[in-house]
Amino acid sequence: MTSTHSITDITHYMQDVGNKARVASVLLSAAETAIKNKALTTIAKIILEKKEWLINENKKDLIAGEEKNLEAALLDRLALNDERVEGMAEGLRQIATLPDPVGSIIDMDYRPSGIQLGKMRVPLGVIGIIYESRPNVTVDAAALCLKSGNATILRGGSEAIHSNRAIASCIQEGLSEVGLPNDSVQVIDTTDRAAVGELLRLQDSVDIIIPRGGKGLIERVTKESLIPVIKHLDGICHVYIDDDADLEKAVTVAYNAKTQRYGTCNTMETLLVSEKVATEVLPVLAEKYIEKGVELRGCEKTQAIISDCIPATEDDWKTEYLAAILSIKIVNGLDDAIHHINVYSSQHTDSIITQDYTKARRFLREVDSSSVMVNASTRFADGFEYGLGAEIGISTDKLHARGPVGLEGLTSLKYVVFGDGHIRQ
Amino acid sequence: MTSTHSITDITHYMQDVGNKARVASVLLSAAETAIKNKALTTIAKIILEKKEWLINENKKDLIAGEEKNLEAALLDRLALNDERVEGMAEGLRQIATLPDPVGSIIDMDYRPSGIQLGKMRVPLGVIGIIYESRPNVTVDAAALCLKSGNATILRGGSEAIHSNRAIASCIQEGLSEVGLPNDSVQVIDTTDRAAVGELLRLQDSVDIIIPRGGKGLIERVTKESLIPVIKHLDGICHVYIDDDADLEKAVTVAYNAKTQRYGTCNTMETLLVSEKVATEVLPVLAEKYIEKGVELRGCEKTQAIISDCIPATEDDWKTEYLAAILSIKIVNGLDDAIHHINVYSSQHTDSIITQDYTKARRFLREVDSSSVMVNASTRFADGFEYGLGAEIGISTDKLHARGPVGLEGLTSLKYVVFGDGHIRQ
Repeated sequence: MTSTHSITDITHYMQDVGNKARVASVLLSAAETAIKNKALTTIAKIILEKKEWLINENKKDLIAGEEKNLEAALLDRLALNDERVEGMAEGLRQIATLPDPVGSIIDMDYRPSGIQLGKMRVPLGVIGIIYESRPNVTVDAAALCLKSGNATILRGGSEAIHSNRAIASCIQEGLSEVGLPNDSVQVIDTTDRAAVGELLRLQDSVDIIIPRGGKGLIERVTKESLIPVIKHLDGICHVYIDDDADLEKAVTVAYNAKTQRYGTCNTMETLLVSEKVATEVLPVLAEKYIEKGVELRGCEKTQAIISDCIPATEDDWKTEYLAAILSIKIVNGLDDAIHHINVYSSQHTDSIITQDYTKARRFLREVDSSSVMVNASTRFADGFEYGLGAEIGISTDKLHARGPVGLEGLTSLKYVVFGDGHIRQ
Repeated sequence: MTSTHSITDITHYMQDVGNKARVASVLLSAAETAIKNKALTTIAKIILEKKEWLINENKKDLIAGEEKNLEAALLDRLALNDERVEGMAEGLRQIATLPDPVGSIIDMDYRPSGIQLGKMRVPLGVIGIIYESRPNVTVDAAALCLKSGNATILRGGSEAIHSNRAIASCIQEGLSEVGLPNDSVQVIDTTDRAAVGELLRLQDSVDIIIPRGGKGLIERVTKESLIPVIKHLDGICHVYIDDDADLEKAVTVAYNAKTQRYGTCNTMETLLVSEKVATEVLPVLAEKYIEKGVELRGCEKTQAIISDCIPATEDDWKTEYLAAILSIKIVNGLDDAIHHINVYSSQHTDSIITQDYTKARRFLREVDSSSVMVNASTRFADGFEYGLGAEIGISTDKLHARGPVGLEGLTSLKYVVFGDGHIRQ
């Protein structure tokens, strides 16, 4: 299926995809660690062997994208080259080396009734991933789901359809080679937008949906999905420089949190500064930011201290710039900072810079974000830095998984009970 | 608000309830354990002091219910008496003695970057609970949410409105007495059905919805809710008697799983028996069941062994009887049993009776239910038996919490990071 089809076709096609995924997921959930690892390294080998072909297939997408006048940034994300294909293979081999979370049993204890009770980590089942342009997501997502024993349904952007098909064929060749079901990883083979809507309604065969992409995609998925969603909406991260901060640490951390990389979701977007230290710390920081080319947007008090600063509007506090722009607000102290964060933060990552024990404790407890930090750069909020090995995304939800989601986040715990003829009295 | 209102009224009222809950939840999430426990024991004290009044208010509901010709079983569940009110107070005191999950930090380790990383257990925020007739749910649910630091919005059945209002006033008196915000627990003070719809759309102020009631309620909530739902749909539980079972244990467990109590969700509804042992074990079991008054519905092979058995239809395998009825199916062996369970089970609780090591291991791994047991009665799947102290329900979902949901299930884990000026390289 390549172009538009009748709704009935798409509905049948997607139901078929869902049913096949469900069947594969049962086999995959019982697959041994060694087989899953073998599949991952085999897929890596095949991807490297077919590198030229993959790059050629990708060219078809690039040419079509140029014809459609896609933005240069989008075309760049779409493009595969030697280095990127090798990166995909390397990612697969790394995931093969991670511990297998499936089957791990924790908290195994005897209860007064005599039964022995524990919790076993099990795959979620079937995971639907809806993503935009970058074809390497196809491999990353499939690999994490495979390692955690889940069947995957992948729906990439229409602009990457040739690349995704080619990658899918490598994945399926690898699965066959080790004897795992082909349907463990399915790439939706139609660019018809209706397929997304159908996927979101497959509540009998799909256990969870993970959207990866812009705000528009995530809002559509959240609204339409009848299936639970693990989502990452925004990264509006804050650093708060407290009046009891070590100002040298404050400058180091606040500079790193903004400038180490601009386009990542854990980059600081708003700097909060206690008014007691603002006149001391802001001029030093402003000079560094301006030298680096960061545009500063401040509240009135900030503008009084930094001359080279444009006024921040209400919208600035709600904006994920993903760019060399920083909004700055001078606050009254800890309470004011926590209040601002709990109103405007996207509950991704927020950090306090302070030497004060009590205030650090309060910030940790009262800021309701997926990562809360003391004297550390928000840029640390990432699956690799947290030791998860890899991440499928960073969840800003509160249920199930919060923060970077790795293999464990793709599993859940079921209870296991061992008795020897035990009955309830 | 007591009767029907315009949609605008209800919308405003519910938005106001949601906003108040959100504000209360911030204060409650930071409340110390001792204060929360004090609130619980104070509410218990007030409920006992006002026992007569509560029973009188409850009478108004009973009279209205009789006028509306409610079923006797429903009226019984609705009724409060001395014993039930004392039970509510005792439940509150028990929850006060449970460990506080909030603020607990696990897996605190240094990372190679030098940051120290852990996970802190935090309240979910605001929990909406939608339930039917039994007024003791008002107290139980409020108490579990309070102890786990969550604000609660309770929507009980219209037939219990006087009882729920009276209980709510006791709860709020207790909250005031210890200085916690009144809005920590709000009972929706209208019987208008539109309020439920509005509650399910408060995605900015409510973090999770827990429906407790019949299948109709749960299906409506799942379909309409824009907020994540923790639900318990059905309890279609199985016991599988394997050909390698110790038949004495098999009889004991299979009898207990069906007859210890009929109306609970962890009661066995379908018995699967390997054909190799069916002729030996089924007559013994059938005699016991029939003596107890259990109606038996069997597959053809079962009928050939048990004369006093009516034919089971396809519907029987899909039915939660909650009554003295049992469906029985003779299967080919372990594979056939696992297949039947994974098709018909509601993923609540399923148990194998076997002495065979390999088959026990396979059953544990391959049966995808929230509780999977070996040689134990399904009736053990319960918050008290599992040592959770109390439960807000049993989740048959796969995300977040599976199985009995206690205080921990009402929390999630956020990452906490401690640095000392650490930056990302």
